[in-house]
Amino acid sequence: SNNRSRLSLSLSLRQEIMKWNGWGYSDSRFLFNKKGQAEFTGKRYRLSGLILPSLKDWFEGTFGANLQHKSPATPTVNLSAVAPPDLNEPFVEDLKAAGVAMSHDPEDRVFRAHGHCLHEIFALREGRIGRVPDMVVWPSCHKDVEKIVELACKHNVCLIPYGGGTSVSSALECPREETRSIVSLDTSQMNRILWIDEKNLTAHVEAGIIGQDLERQLNERGYCTGHEPDSMEFSSLGGWVATRASGMKKNIYGNIEELVVHIKMVTPRGVIEKSCLGPRMSTGPDIHHFILGSEGTLGVVTEVTLKIRPIPEYQKYGSVVFPNFQQGVACLREVARQRCAPASIRLMDNEQFQFGHALKPQVSSIFTSFLDGLKKFYITKFKGFDPHHLCVATLLFEGDRGKVLQHEKQVYDIAAKFGIHYKKHLCVCVQDLGMDYYVIGESFETSVPWDRVLDLCRNVKERIVRECKERGVQFPPLSTCRVTQTYDAGACVYFYFAFNYRGLSDPVHVYEQVEHAAREEILANGGSLSHHHGVGKLRKEWMKESVSGVGLGMLKSVKEYVDPQNVFGNRNLL
Amino acid sequence: SNNRSRLSLSLSLRQEIMKWNGWGYSDSRFLFNKKGQAEFTGKRYRLSGLILPSLKDWFEGTFGANLQHKSPATPTVNLSAVAPPDLNEPFVEDLKAAGVAMSHDPEDRVFRAHGHCLHEIFALREGRIGRVPDMVVWPSCHKDVEKIVELACKHNVCLIPYGGGTSVSSALECPREETRSIVSLDTSQMNRILWIDEKNLTAHVEAGIIGQDLERQLNERGYCTGHEPDSMEFSSLGGWVATRASGMKKNIYGNIEELVVHIKMVTPRGVIEKSCLGPRMSTGPDIHHFILGSEGTLGVVTEVTLKIRPIPEYQKYGSVVFPNFQQGVACLREVARQRCAPASIRLMDNEQFQFGHALKPQVSSIFTSFLDGLKKFYITKFKGFDPHHLCVATLLFEGDRGKVLQHEKQVYDIAAKFGIHYKKHLCVCVQDLGMDYYVIGESFETSVPWDRVLDLCRNVKERIVRECKERGVQFPPLSTCRVTQTYDAGACVYFYFAFNYRGLSDPVHVYEQVEHAAREEILANGGSLSHHHGVGKLRKEWMKESVSGVGLGMLKSVKEYVDPQNVFGNRNLL
Repeated sequence: SNNRSRLSLSLSLRQEIMKWNGWGYSDSRFLFNKKGQAEFTGKRYRLSGLILPSLKDWFEGTFGANLQHKSPATPTVNLSAVAPPDLNEPFVEDLKAAGVAMSHDPEDRVFRAHGHCLHEIFALREGRIGRVPDMVVWPSCHKDVEKIVELACKHNVCLIPYGGGTSVSSALECPREETRSIVSLDTSQMNRILWIDEKNLTAHVEAGIIGQDLERQLNERGYCTGHEPDSMEFSSLGGWVATRASGMKKNIYGNIEELVVHIKMVTPRGVIEKSCLGPRMSTGPDIHHFILGSEGTLGVVTEVTLKIRPIPEYQKYGSVVFPNFQQGVACLREVARQRCAPASIRLMDNEQFQFGHALKPQVSSIFTSFLDGLKKFYITKFKGFDPHHLCVATLLFEGDRGKVLQHEKQVYDIAAKFGIHYKKHLCVCVQDLGMDYYVIGESFETSVPWDRVLDLCRNVKERIVRECKERGVQFPPLSTCRVTQTYDAGACVYFYFAFNYRGLSDPVHVYEQVEHAAREEILANGGSLSHHHGVGKLRKEWMKESVSGVGLGMLKSVKEYVDPQNVFGNRNLL
Repeated sequence: SNNRSRLSLSLSLRQEIMKWNGWGYSDSRFLFNKKGQAEFTGKRYRLSGLILPSLKDWFEGTFGANLQHKSPATPTVNLSAVAPPDLNEPFVEDLKAAGVAMSHDPEDRVFRAHGHCLHEIFALREGRIGRVPDMVVWPSCHKDVEKIVELACKHNVCLIPYGGGTSVSSALECPREETRSIVSLDTSQMNRILWIDEKNLTAHVEAGIIGQDLERQLNERGYCTGHEPDSMEFSSLGGWVATRASGMKKNIYGNIEELVVHIKMVTPRGVIEKSCLGPRMSTGPDIHHFILGSEGTLGVVTEVTLKIRPIPEYQKYGSVVFPNFQQGVACLREVARQRCAPASIRLMDNEQFQFGHALKPQVSSIFTSFLDGLKKFYITKFKGFDPHHLCVATLLFEGDRGKVLQHEKQVYDIAAKFGIHYKKHLCVCVQDLGMDYYVIGESFETSVPWDRVLDLCRNVKERIVRECKERGVQFPPLSTCRVTQTYDAGACVYFYFAFNYRGLSDPVHVYEQVEHAAREEILANGGSLSHHHGVGKLRKEWMKESVSGVGLGMLKSVKEYVDPQNVFGNRNLL
């Protein structure tokens, strides 16, 4: 696009290699080839370039979908649908004088106008574009951010911080009622590791860095943070802090709140930071926790000091197969009780197991005759073999080799009471598969005390099925869950549901109604509103009951003090 | 005292068995008998009833003190010095109608007018009594607290929550400038475990319970919290939450912020609590962290859900002797780096080691010929043997027997690079020894990155010695430290200093000036203002720089929202 007016043409933007209307890289997607076989394109992933012969049957059977009936996306962004920018000229002039890179190019603006909620992606695929930021600014360092925020206050523009763009809570949507010029503050150019302190095992990093870049650069120095949210290929450090991100390997490395040693945030009221790097303090409430979870409503996280660890010597994956979900949950609970959870332990329900099986590539030593092999193991231990009930936990051990082997033994000894240790690793990821064929779906998560896990999973999955039916969905939906994290007193559960929307006049509305009902079911079953996706604008209606009216009032009082003009006007959370 | 007007005479108050003007139980103290030998009185502790023959020489030698020169305390509280209560009669009437127990007895009021700062205890010993609460109320449950707070708002009285009374930050002092009636809200009658949930390993407990009672009652059911702050004999659950308490065994059980699953707090604005027991949430900033560390300025913590654990099968103590403090710190740092810290690991400097040696009882298999035994070990490993440099780490391992033994091996293998594993356990506690003989002292703590630990310890200890000299202290003070907690990125350091104040006209002022200088030295060396003692009124002057002006403003905005009338008017923190 040659109408760009970025001040600095040297900006390297990920939008050039990423889907403009979906998750991930443009070159990496599922498609059905002319023979009707599924393929995963590109070269970036383990499945890339492989034929997945079982996927078609699973897909058609599960969703009642038909590969002849396509619902293709608009191939390119419809720039004519983008409203011209409403620029605040004095702000733009001052920014130019300050030498801050900026753009009001429509593509740049559309790319930063959304996260990855179903309704956002669906609208883009249909070529519908709502309100988008009027311009994008790219600060290159903390000082630039201070300048931008100062000018935003001076000229009363609305700032929306943008990190990796992986939000699934409508957090990046421009509020329709906003009358000021909206400026997307893209942190992507603030992506340097400023120092590594090998004595204290900390690294001081600019908050715009993307997860995979942070890990790669630390790895080159022999270190890692170990923070691996599912989105880590695309999400940013600042985003993790702003949303209280959880990492897959939190059992070793901690969730983001345990990883941060120091946070620097620029607010309209000034910079918030602690005065020292003491590993723990008791000087009033911990101000880091005013920032963690603030979702861009208070300011921009610019720099973070994180714990780092030496790269683990050894990693080992494994699986455990259970006769049913109940046994799987009992196993995870026992592992948590004995506090011996490996780096990661995740339990898929039967529906996800089936999906994983459907992803078996044509040529692969990994999945070949998995079910057959399993059967042999299985019948020696359990009566009968019912592939429609079994479920699977995937495990990742990490550390010194000797300790990993010891740890493995401990965990598999526990697991043996509930299921069968199956040495091959099953890796399953639910993707945006299906939108080309009238299938839509999305995931959401909760955390819940251990004794409520089974009821909550069953009730929410059933509620989804029932709600779909009542709302005219013609084929039973895929309604599935996995337990993704274990804690002392409970677990995190991820739900995913998807359905064939043919015949529905407003499929996204149906989706949202079903998800809404599912969330009510979660709350009624003692689950939390969110475990790490945050609140954004999608879940605001529940905030008051989640944190009590007084809790919400406290959050509001902080917002009013820090940002009385509502310069950080994304209207998330409160 | 027969002038008490407690509504309920069945109140059981710890003040009846505790020192009214010092730390701990009335029956447990150091004294020098007629032969000049030190004894520890009572029957409650391991040292109780024992003669400590070395203590006199150590005491006289260290402080230049003379047992002939006594500075005895006022034997009983001087009730005539207590101002008559300024009661808010309408409030009292409403409380009576509500059936809440209360008193305006002077002893009850004096007992709740102070914590255990040096200046507080010193004044009591001299019979000086400042402003004390005008009355004491004893709610028996959450509902009572709601009623009291409602009435306090209605009648505009000042409430000061009182838990275990172990504050060392002047947090319990009545502000002199307060013109309203001051009511001490004593939580001691809210001391029940309301339920134990064995499935989720949680217990729901009233916040007035004292640490040792909580542990004893949980132990009877086979559980523990494992939370052991040094004050746990006397401090309360609500106090832990209000001050962000750290526990000795935090490496296994976590500090208080990691132990709490749910907190209920009554504020003038209403009750603050989360709506569910999900083990982790991401619904905006974590409101528990608005409460943790609020030091009684926002409301009263009434009930807390805590994690519990099965009582560990096995406990094992041990020691490591190092040729010097530097080697000791290096060892603790390596243990932290390898993340294998036992339940507790604490490193005493040489001065504390000497004190520990001076506590050797006459008849004891534990300490007998400790130095001789040590010497034999020592010279086989290190060149020379200098009891004036060596220092000692004490360790506590806890868990399944097999794992403890394995864990021990791992830690002592590391320790062997820095010092000598000495199987006998050295337990040293610095007590309020000496006030009867013109010796005063106190401890304070900080947390600091690993690479600053050595410099900070040396600089602060030297600063204390220098400041004492400059301020006319005639004999060099005891100036000592220990590392009490290890974290990934740093450690907690406890300082203790004490000196002989004979010849000084205002010894407490000198003490405070020296401590003030020591804290400045701590901050200049990258340490935090506090690790767990909190801010209270003693450390307010540093708060602004500790959390940045904006951080402080956020805390203030929360206070103004939650308590606009300043009903919780203890004036701590802000």
